[in-house]
Amino acid sequence: MALAQPRTAIIGAGISGLTAGKMLKDYGVPYTTFELSDRIGGNWAFGNPNGHSSAYRSLHIDTSKHRLSFKDFPVPEDFPSFPHHTQIKSYLDDYAAAFGLLENIEFNNGVVSARQVDGGWEIEDQAGAVRQFDLLVVGNGHHWDARLPDFPGTFTGETIHSHHYIDPQTPLNLTGKRILVVGIGNSAADITVELSSKSLQNTVTLSTRSSAWIVPKYLAGQPGDKFFKTNPYLPLSWQRKAAQWFAPVVGADPTKYGLPPANHKLFEAHPTQSVELPLRLGSGDVIPKPNVRLLDGQTVHFDDGTSAEFDAIVYATGYNITFPFFDPDFISAPDNHIRLYKRMFKPGVDNLVFIGFAQSIPTLFPFVECQSRLLAAYAVGRYALPPVGEMERVIDADQQLHAGHCVDRPRHTQQVDYFYYEHDIRTRELPAGLKRAG
Amino acid sequence: MALAQPRTAIIGAGISGLTAGKMLKDYGVPYTTFELSDRIGGNWAFGNPNGHSSAYRSLHIDTSKHRLSFKDFPVPEDFPSFPHHTQIKSYLDDYAAAFGLLENIEFNNGVVSARQVDGGWEIEDQAGAVRQFDLLVVGNGHHWDARLPDFPGTFTGETIHSHHYIDPQTPLNLTGKRILVVGIGNSAADITVELSSKSLQNTVTLSTRSSAWIVPKYLAGQPGDKFFKTNPYLPLSWQRKAAQWFAPVVGADPTKYGLPPANHKLFEAHPTQSVELPLRLGSGDVIPKPNVRLLDGQTVHFDDGTSAEFDAIVYATGYNITFPFFDPDFISAPDNHIRLYKRMFKPGVDNLVFIGFAQSIPTLFPFVECQSRLLAAYAVGRYALPPVGEMERVIDADQQLHAGHCVDRPRHTQQVDYFYYEHDIRTRELPAGLKRAG
Repeated sequence: MALAQPRTAIIGAGISGLTAGKMLKDYGVPYTTFELSDRIGGNWAFGNPNGHSSAYRSLHIDTSKHRLSFKDFPVPEDFPSFPHHTQIKSYLDDYAAAFGLLENIEFNNGVVSARQVDGGWEIEDQAGAVRQFDLLVVGNGHHWDARLPDFPGTFTGETIHSHHYIDPQTPLNLTGKRILVVGIGNSAADITVELSSKSLQNTVTLSTRSSAWIVPKYLAGQPGDKFFKTNPYLPLSWQRKAAQWFAPVVGADPTKYGLPPANHKLFEAHPTQSVELPLRLGSGDVIPKPNVRLLDGQTVHFDDGTSAEFDAIVYATGYNITFPFFDPDFISAPDNHIRLYKRMFKPGVDNLVFIGFAQSIPTLFPFVECQSRLLAAYAVGRYALPPVGEMERVIDADQQLHAGHCVDRPRHTQQVDYFYYEHDIRTRELPAGLKRAG
Repeated sequence: MALAQPRTAIIGAGISGLTAGKMLKDYGVPYTTFELSDRIGGNWAFGNPNGHSSAYRSLHIDTSKHRLSFKDFPVPEDFPSFPHHTQIKSYLDDYAAAFGLLENIEFNNGVVSARQVDGGWEIEDQAGAVRQFDLLVVGNGHHWDARLPDFPGTFTGETIHSHHYIDPQTPLNLTGKRILVVGIGNSAADITVELSSKSLQNTVTLSTRSSAWIVPKYLAGQPGDKFFKTNPYLPLSWQRKAAQWFAPVVGADPTKYGLPPANHKLFEAHPTQSVELPLRLGSGDVIPKPNVRLLDGQTVHFDDGTSAEFDAIVYATGYNITFPFFDPDFISAPDNHIRLYKRMFKPGVDNLVFIGFAQSIPTLFPFVECQSRLLAAYAVGRYALPPVGEMERVIDADQQLHAGHCVDRPRHTQQVDYFYYEHDIRTRELPAGLKRAG
């Protein structure tokens, strides 16, 4: 940025907007955060009135507290290994209070439109006010716009996307029902396990197209993710291969439990973390099925030629990246493809920064903190971008490094190895950007 | 037995009575089975009107189908690894039908009293009839007479023993409650997991005195019990030591999850099989506590000096061995101690056989089948007992072998290693008894 004190607008007060605000505040950059809701926390504010939380009542974070902690603000000592969403929300509340972040947030005042004007931004908010900013930070998240699969035919039973699922009674009564869950991510696994509890007297079927490796949250009495930390000094592809040796030990092969084979190797995509799903499959409480071939009334036909009747379908089929405040011709993310330098900068648009648009393994928490550190350096002129041509080349190389081994599915386009990414930003990108800034 | 065709009475049509009947039928021995209920299956007949089933709605057997199968009647190919109780019941129904066992069972007609008369038995049934038999087989089970701990003080909230627990709504409404579960066996683990499901909005505390090692039902994608098969040609104590090396790998140490340390080494007592309990503890959904020190109204004080208020206590504290049809002066099992030769014969009473009175590791199914084989050989005179003095010596040696390393608690008095036991009966005891029979 050319200005030492750019007037900055942040869209969203979830973990991305909060860490962005914290770092800008550290550097004395004036900023305003626009938040649709009456509270902070975004996805982690259970029942968030802005409709952007996908948290269900039983949700525990799938990353252990050792991994999810912000570097600037350690998680409380007394947290359990895998905190409940209420604990994550309280951690974010404490984070916001500790750094005085609430005073910069305009609650119940989302951004309606953001347009480039005269080298800056014209922001129209929900209150109808129009204000000018020099720099725009987009942190509106990518876990709120439910994506639905495009199966042929029509299903006449009840349907719900996991985004709207709260518990077995809310918003649908999912007891005593024949239920199909579509998907194999952590939400699919959690919801399948919850609904297949015998006390609910459902019959639960799980259908997946791409399948997934299933790893336990605990290994040898320790949170499993303590064992899986990539080393940024060794090639990522080698490390993935080494981790694949663990597959037989952790019992991660989905075919062991009747699911289709994964269309990728272990750790080539975000594995599903569940100790309970394999048990439910192995106990006959969850019936595994391949992809849906056809919907026909209440009957669902599967790729293996079998079919069954269902009362309800739960689609745990992921999310779209959506920017409702931008003109789609300016920027959009069809099938979740969006070309960003270091997942933050759109080449050629140097007053716009994205935070949190990645499927960071193991988790987004320290990842957005790392991005926010680069944002702040950029805002105060201590980091400059390379030329557009180099940015484009690096985008390709980074994508190849982090996700080149993945199948090209919306779920995987954003995959990033956090440890590699953080090491790259801290030891290479920030010093190089400082040099470029002169 | 002196008679080649002893008129035999069997008490109970659970797995013990059924396998006993099957083997007697194989050998052409006439017998009558007395069953309190209107159905077979005993403990495995969910909601059994005889009140002797401890099955809860969500119960899956903790032994894989590979281990629980009768040798004479393999489990169906399409069974899941860990069948549900309804599948076990249907397996027993098929077993009874395949061998024509129903025709010998008098349903709704339990035994009121059994008295030794003139070298035989006088059996009075519920219908009031009195009949004479030559041989009595006791298979009334040891998982129906709930044992309650003797804590000082009085608890004024609701209490229930796991024997009567069906599901979170039945017979007590256990939702939105502060619940204490006492115990650490498989029932305690299953019920704790079920009640701590976030959708029920309970707070659940687990208290244990003796603690237990916790092993997963699945290891490396296989039912865990496939890996743990003792070798009857090697000393049992060595094998237990070797298995203890696995403890760190399978994450079995209860202290990893905040529970008290086990008062025994891994596999020195029946380990608790649960993949879910460690996760619930590690997620803060279940609060671990040591033993109860005092009950005071709705407050429970624990051995670590802490206390908390509860709405309900679930006692998953095991069962007493009870023979309501015997004069207690003739035979009883105080604190579950009962001295039986090969867990079947009371020295000096040679027309009485017990089936199924063991805590067989890994499971009772092939164990009772093995005992029933010895019973049938005995009934037709192809097996004779040794002198009483030798029986007493062997009882001591066997108890030392199978349970000498265990703490002396009612839960462990009956522990038997199935593989060792079966090998002993098949290769040593049956040939030796045949030789004694002449």
